[in-house]
Formats: sequence, C-alpha cells, structure tokens
Amino acid sequence: MSTNDATDTTESTDTTDAMDATDAIDATKTNDESTAASGSSASTCGAASSATDDDSGSACGASNPSSSAGSESTCGGSTATSKRDATDERVESTVDDFEGDPGRLVAVGLGPGEPEGMTARARRALLEAEHVVGYTTYIELLPDEVTESAEELYDTPMCGEVSRTEEAIDRALAGNDVAIVGSGDPNVYALAGLALEILESKGATASAVDFEVVPGVPAAQSCGARLGAPLVNDTVSVSLSDHLTPMSEIESRLHAVAPEGFTIAIYNPWSRKRRENFETCCEILLEHRDPETPVGVVHGAGRDDERVEIVELGELEELGESDLIDMTTTILVGNEETYVFDDRMVTPRGYESKYDY
Amino acid sequence: MSTNDATDTTESTDTTDAMDATDAIDATKTNDESTAASGSSASTCGAASSATDDDSGSACGASNPSSSAGSESTCGGSTATSKRDATDERVESTVDDFEGDPGRLVAVGLGPGEPEGMTARARRALLEAEHVVGYTTYIELLPDEVTESAEELYDTPMCGEVSRTEEAIDRALAGNDVAIVGSGDPNVYALAGLALEILESKGATASAVDFEVVPGVPAAQSCGARLGAPLVNDTVSVSLSDHLTPMSEIESRLHAVAPEGFTIAIYNPWSRKRRENFETCCEILLEHRDPETPVGVVHGAGRDDERVEIVELGELEELGESDLIDMTTTILVGNEETYVFDDRMVTPRGYESKYDY
Repeated sequence: MSTNDATDTTESTDTTDAMDATDAIDATKTNDESTAASGSSASTCGAASSATDDDSGSACGASNPSSSAGSESTCGGSTATSKRDATDERVESTVDDFEGDPGRLVAVGLGPGEPEGMTARARRALLEAEHVVGYTTYIELLPDEVTESAEELYDTPMCGEVSRTEEAIDRALAGNDVAIVGSGDPNVYALAGLALEILESKGATASAVDFEVVPGVPAAQSCGARLGAPLVNDTVSVSLSDHLTPMSEIESRLHAVAPEGFTIAIYNPWSRKRRENFETCCEILLEHRDPETPVGVVHGAGRDDERVEIVELGELEELGESDLIDMTTTILVGNEETYVFDDRMVTPRGYESKYDY
Repeated sequence: MSTNDATDTTESTDTTDAMDATDAIDATKTNDESTAASGSSASTCGAASSATDDDSGSACGASNPSSSAGSESTCGGSTATSKRDATDERVESTVDDFEGDPGRLVAVGLGPGEPEGMTARARRALLEAEHVVGYTTYIELLPDEVTESAEELYDTPMCGEVSRTEEAIDRALAGNDVAIVGSGDPNVYALAGLALEILESKGATASAVDFEVVPGVPAAQSCGARLGAPLVNDTVSVSLSDHLTPMSEIESRLHAVAPEGFTIAIYNPWSRKRRENFETCCEILLEHRDPETPVGVVHGAGRDDERVEIVELGELEELGESDLIDMTTTILVGNEETYVFDDRMVTPRGYESKYDY
C-alpha cells in the first residue's frame, strides 16, 4: 500500500545513488550481450514468465526479488537497454534531449496488495502500457496477463522512488507508453505528485505525455474494510514519516485534529529511524482522547503476513515494541463515539439520533 | 460517489416514511398478481434486462428510473415480495423473527460512477450475491452481468438509506446472500457503519451474516485523479452535511485543520438546505488560507455531466451560485504549497528538498 511507497523513499535516501551506479554497470554489461536480440526482449520476458514464473505474476525480476543481477539476466535485453538510457539521462536529461513524439504516462494505483483489489480501469491501463515501471514488490503483485503483455518491465528493489519515477518519465518522453505503478492510490503519499514535479523539472508538460492518474483503493479504506466501519465520519490521514515533513509539523497536525471528532488514519507509523515519532504520536493522541478509544491496527494488509487487531489507544505505544507495528502497518484511531461490536470497529454517523432503530 | 449516499439521507428525511408506505401499497398489489409465478422472478428480471435494457446495466427499475411503480411492474414478483417483507419487518423485526440459517451480507463499494472503476473483488462479490440492494442510480450503474445474475434486485429512489439498509439486513437474516451497494467506499460517509448499527439494533451480530466490507475508490481519490495530484500529502475529509453532525462541530473541525498543512476534501458541499454551510466553510477557509490557494472542483465525476475546474479559494463562495457546485460535487482544497502546473493541481510532498531535480 501507499505505506510502502513512502517507506521506499524514507529508508532509501542513503543507498539510492550507489544502487543506481551498480545497476548501470550490470546494465552496460548485459546490454552488449543482448544487442543482437534486438526487438525480441518482450517475447523473452513473456516466455521466461510463463515457463518459469507462473505464480509470481512478474516476468522480469520477480523470480529473484532479492537479486537484481539475477533478475536482469532473466531478460537482460530490455532491462539493460532501459538501464543504459537511465544512466545516460537520469542526471541531466530534459525534454529537449528527446526527439520524436513522446508516448503516454499513466500513474496507476493498484489498491490493496492482492490483484483482485485492482479496478478494471487500472488493469486496462496496465494492459495498454508498453512499459510498466515500479517497485519490485508491486511488479510481483501484477497478474500474469499484465506482465506478459508488457514489452518491458522495469522494477527496482525497496529504494529509488525518485529515480524510478524519472526512469518512467524518460521512457515516456522517448516515445513509449508507460505505466508507473504503486499500491493504494497515486494521490495518497504516492507517485502522482512526484511524476508531475519531475515532468516540470525536465521542462516537459503533463499534456505532452497525456499524463493520467488511475485511482486505486487507498490503504486507509482497505484497512478500514477489514476492521468493519471505523472511518464512516470525517477522517484525517497523517503520515508519521518525517523524511519529507518536519516532525514539528506532524505534531502540530496531530494536536489540531485529536481534540476534534475526526477518525485518524496513521500511515508509516514505525521504523527503526522513526520509533520516537510513533511514541510522540501516541502521547499526543492520549492528551486529547480517552485511553479506551478503539484503535484498529492492520499489518501487511493483503499479504501473507496480514494481521488485524483492535486495541485500545492506551495500549498502542507499547505495541510499537511488537512486530505488529512496522512500515507495512496502517493504524486507524477511532473518535469519541467509536465502539467495538462483534470484533468490528463502528464509528456511528448519527443516524440513530434521526431514525428509530 | 459517497457524496450521493449522504445526499440520499440528507434530502430524504421528510419523505422516507411516506415513500415506504407508497411502496408497500404497490407491493401488496403486485405481489398478489405475481404469486403464481413463484420462483420465476429472477429469470423474469434477466429476460426483461437483456431484452429491453441492454445498455442500462440494470434489470429491475433502471429502465424507469423516475417511476418506481413502472420499475416494480418490470419484475413485480421479486420486488413486491421483498417490499411486503420490508413493510412487515422494517418496524419491529429482530433476529428472533427469522428462522433457519441466515445468509451473508456484504457492503460493496462501487468506486466512481463508471463500472470500470469497480474492483475485481467488488464484481465477484456482486456476482456471488443472490440479492443486490441499493439506491436506484447505483443499481443502474451495475454491469449487465451483475444485474442478470442476481435473483433479485431491490432499488429505491433518492431516499430511504436507512430503510434500504434494513431491507438488505432482513433479507440476509432471512437466509439470502445479500450485497448492499453504494458508490465510493463503504467507509466514506457510507453504509458500512449503518449496516453494523442496524444489525446490532436487531439483536443480530456481524458474524451471524458473515458481514464483510468490500472497499472501493472514494470520491476524494476519484476526483483527485481527475485533478492531477492535489492530495499527495496529509489530507482531511469533511462533510458539510449538518443532517447528522451539528454545524458547530463542522465549523470547529474546519477551523482546526485550515491553519495546518492539510489538503481538504469537502463532501456534500451544497444543497438548497445547506447553502449557508458552504458560505460559512468558504469564509473559515479564507480566514486561514490565501485567497489564491488552488481549489479543485469536480462535478458529477464519472457521469455524463462531469465537469472539472481548478479555481482559487477566493472565487469559491461565488461559485456556490453556479450549477458547478451541487450535491454531486466534491471540492479539493490545496494547502499552502499546492500549485497549478499545466492544468493540474500539484501538492508537493517535499522530495525537491531531498533530491536534486
């Protein structure tokens, strides 16, 4: 979910450049080997996928998620070519460096982890794309029909959100129809804004690449569904990542909303780097809300390690010590009217004051 | 979108009871006529749909959205039976009034107006349901395969959210597998909470009907996608409907969030009954934010009359006089960093402060 996109960036700042350099070396090497194959890279991907990779849902790299070298050798032609372009162009390419007509760029929200959470429109956008770009984990989640129909898949491990987005933009400016994917919704702590910012920085425009955003189900709603009805009234979403927002602003926002009737969706609640942020958040919420306020905690929604628990606000901080709360966790804090009924969180909208039931 | 669900309730308070009474009369009448048809109501629905109604995507009532009598005569057997049950049971039925094993109840979010915005999981939930219950406009949006596969469709015009939800619950307690649908997400000003509240009021439990929520793309994200990237940082959603929340609380929430860095999604911005709420909201926002703050206005997202405009906060109040802003409109207010680039709203996340582009 969007949680992870945020994580990528947050956790990866120090390693992004080094990682790109490594890729560039592998890329140049494998590219020489694959030049003779010319346009056959797409079918190479498809074959590799259907032959060896039916369950992973990803043609390039998915079978070796922990080894980017291994994944490149699976379809070196396409990936290597893209990597070489990337290293040539990432640093200083502008719209003037590209000749011919640009292709299209679409930012696609995959929704919750499982492919069934994707909209039909998202699936169509991916099937229409020539290149699909994303974080390796999300590329792995794509249905086989998508990964097999794409001419090229470009995935990078848990780092490099910015370079990955620029790679997608450069491919679109070079004339390819490109989809860049992320879980959740592209507008929720995700790629839609970054893509527009980088387009602008290159002197390109959104209309030049027919930039389109295909919405998806955000983490707050995916997790809300698993908890019942925790978010049925006015709601605020706050990310505890202070990588891009100063913690002082995050604290100020929590102080502003906690005394009001908002339910609160907390994204990026915890990491080794941000343990204090989570503790501070719990303390601020307890200044304004009853320790017995129901809190829904969803870990790894849509993944094999999914866990859903309803706890009390007073217990939340100590849960930060457990593996229930990490960067794949979304936390939904009830308001003063939220209650627990039959293991579901319910935030009433007030119908009972208007209707007799 | 969720906007409309809220509207239904808000606009219908005075008419709900009268409307149900009318339905009951029609129902009893048509029920006598259809008794002989026994179990054939489902195929009657299907036939009517495929023969006369291929494009509407709704088997029962869609071809006569403005005439509930007409729609009932299309498949009187099923609708009439259900209506008779409804009038017998709506007032005082509890879980003890039902014999045998209950069926399942699933609250399904359809996402934005167009069927392509539905997730694969939502489509499967609708195909698996025996009865599909919803506001007529949403039933009309369902794909033919869904309306033709359902044994019964129960739709009511723009009113009766509570009675419609109770109808769905009674059908599930009576042993049917029931899907109750709404646009957007069931957790966003929508049905998930109401269903749990009514289940509890009947002495039933969520687990007794295997209550499940299938999330959908909320209006804020559907509209955000149309505007570009207006919501990429911390965001709050506020409904201006004071039908279920006192206006004093709505004003307090707006005053709390407007000075902070939140982008603000405004649901239910305007109706004849709530024109002052919209004016008050604009004035509160202007107390805290620059009149030049970009504001995205999306009218009728996913409908034939869809309109998307980006204006300035200072212009917003006077737009309340135009037909751009009504109960089908969602308004997205930028924060102090939001800007307009190539007809898109962009709310930066702050990458530019960390990366060189």
